[in-house]
Order: sequence, then structure tokens, then C-alpha cells
Amino acid sequence: MRKLQHPASDSLILTHVLYALSDPLRLSIVQKLAQTEGLTCGSFELPIAKSTASHHFRVLREAGVIHMRPEGTQYINSLRRTELDQRFPGLLDAILNAPIQL
Amino acid sequence: MRKLQHPASDSLILTHVLYALSDPLRLSIVQKLAQTEGLTCGSFELPIAKSTASHHFRVLREAGVIHMRPEGTQYINSLRRTELDQRFPGLLDAILNAPIQL
Repeated sequence: MRKLQHPASDSLILTHVLYALSDPLRLSIVQKLAQTEGLTCGSFELPIAKSTASHHFRVLREAGVIHMRPEGTQYINSLRRTELDQRFPGLLDAILNAPIQL
Repeated sequence: MRKLQHPASDSLILTHVLYALSDPLRLSIVQKLAQTEGLTCGSFELPIAKSTASHHFRVLREAGVIHMRPEGTQYINSLRRTELDQRFPGLLDAILNAPIQL
């Protein structure tokens, strides 16, 4: 797998992050990554086509919410929690602690 | 103007709120309302067509972010800050305090 581009932590854009988190499925990915770091895309067992899942991971990556590291034939995903907390203090915690209605 | 429907405070949905705030123009409306309550739609002087502006106010209202009260031939807008703070503690503050790149 090729190395993917990620936005720098000091250039993350609030509206892009909010948009990335405004989808129930993407939010569920982030919630799972908040509990368990280093998950492959396949391990989420999402109830959608692979191409649709790839789209959602891309939106999260391009907004700077997740980091995708190539390893063999897969990507290992992690939440960019420290960088998000630095740039938007309190935002991620507020979202992760909110009542969720999917 | 007719009375408009607003979602109940205990049924606000996180992803709807995040989506409503994920647009730079809608975010700018919310930022202005956070400083000054009770503004008519026209007072925002948005650089867009009136119909587009109406769409943005509707998205904010339907997500439960703003309240629109009819008064004469206009709507008076206010931020549902207390209700948002109760349902999603810390979220609005984190967003209003974030560095903004429109």
C-alpha cells in the first residue's frame, strides 16, 4: 500500500473536521478508534461496500481526524487525538462523550 | 411569518448538529449569534442569494442549533445555547473557541 497524505496538525480546518464527524458511520469509526488504536479498515466490519468504506476513511483522513499507516497489504488506522486536542481543545472529548443517536 | 418547527432539546442528534456547523457560512451565523442574540436573517448581510441564506438558516434550525421566532414580516434568530450545552456539554464552547479558517 502506498503512503497516504495527511494534513499538518496546524492546518486542520474546523469545518472539515466537523463535516468528517457529521456522518453516523464515520463517527462510529472514530468512537471505536478512541477505544482501540491501530485497527485495520477491515476490522471495523462495516455494513457497507468496501468502496464506500474507503470513501469514509478517506474523508476522515483528509480532514485530519485519523492517520492511516500502510503496513503490508493494509492500512493501520489511528485517531489523531493529541493533534486534534491541541488544535481544537475540548472538541473531541465533547463529541465522544455526547449521547449518540445513530 | 408562520411559526416554524424546532426539534425538542432532548432529541437533538449529534451528527445533525455537527453537519449544521460544518459549513463556513452557517458557522459564521452561529458565531455572530453567540455574540448578539435576536438578529433578523437580513442583518447578517450574507454574500449569497436570499434563497440560499434561507436554506442555511433552515439547516441550523432543523438541527436544533438556532431558534427562529416569527415577528411581523421577519424571523428573529437566537442560538439555542443552553439546550445545546445541556445535551452536548462543551461542544459549542469548543467550536466557538476554535481557530477558524473559513
